[in-house]
Amino acid sequence: MNLISSQKNRSILGIDPGLIVTGFSIIVVQNGKTYLKECGYLPLGSKKEIPIRIKLFYDFFKEKIEKNNITDLALETPFLGKNSAGFLKLGYLRGILYLLKEEYDLKIHEFSPRTVKQAITNFGGAEKEQVLKTLLHIFPELSTITIKKYDITDAVAVSLCAAWKN
Amino acid sequence: MNLISSQKNRSILGIDPGLIVTGFSIIVVQNGKTYLKECGYLPLGSKKEIPIRIKLFYDFFKEKIEKNNITDLALETPFLGKNSAGFLKLGYLRGILYLLKEEYDLKIHEFSPRTVKQAITNFGGAEKEQVLKTLLHIFPELSTITIKKYDITDAVAVSLCAAWKN
Repeated sequence: MNLISSQKNRSILGIDPGLIVTGFSIIVVQNGKTYLKECGYLPLGSKKEIPIRIKLFYDFFKEKIEKNNITDLALETPFLGKNSAGFLKLGYLRGILYLLKEEYDLKIHEFSPRTVKQAITNFGGAEKEQVLKTLLHIFPELSTITIKKYDITDAVAVSLCAAWKN
Repeated sequence: MNLISSQKNRSILGIDPGLIVTGFSIIVVQNGKTYLKECGYLPLGSKKEIPIRIKLFYDFFKEKIEKNNITDLALETPFLGKNSAGFLKLGYLRGILYLLKEEYDLKIHEFSPRTVKQAITNFGGAEKEQVLKTLLHIFPELSTITIKKYDITDAVAVSLCAAWKN
């Protein structure tokens, strides 16, 4: 194995965390090529107690990280509005992701929503539909996604952003 | 072992979570008697990166729960003000505590700061000094605490509240 190219190979897990639906994507950068290995969503439901959902989230991504030899984690920085209770809840899942980052010694990348849209579509104020269209040019296999598509494409977009960063 | 009394025996871990200093307390209810088994604080520092502090927090309380056969977790509900970024951060540690609750099948008790003060001092608007004075009557050993005393007494107060609840 070539040490230099192996050092540049990365498996990036992009996550759009939500306590009801969490989108995720795994993008691999290998020998200079970028491909989409997997994407989907984790349904956490709205009826289960919060601690149960948090454990499901932790276990799910722990397994994804281990099985895919994830090296990098990509997240959007949250938009901070006025709903304090909402922010507290957003923090739960981010706390879990920071724990996983530390447990698996992952590199973490955080981008503002604007930075992600700018990187993908060349326009920071782009709509989700525009981001999806651009992503479809890059990864035509995304056309098969029919449900929760924006949860998934948000995750794909942020992981692609991390892939392009270096 | 008497099954009935053993069912009533509880080891309550009370936590006042903070990303710089976290206070904690372990109160045991055994055969109808309540005693303070341990209390102290976990210094997380202000210079370490957040994921490092989160992992320290998780590992520290995981060990406390295992070594002390913790059955119950007691927390104050946070006061939700206007600082969204602050709430997001508060959420990190609560997310970790919810994970531990689920991993160890703990019973969780959450009380508003007012409820805790009311239970301890009979006055919901009591100052921290008043809470400390009342706690000193119940647990005279607390007089040996000299530093971070309010981080510790907040944790003692919330765990005592959970001990008295049943």
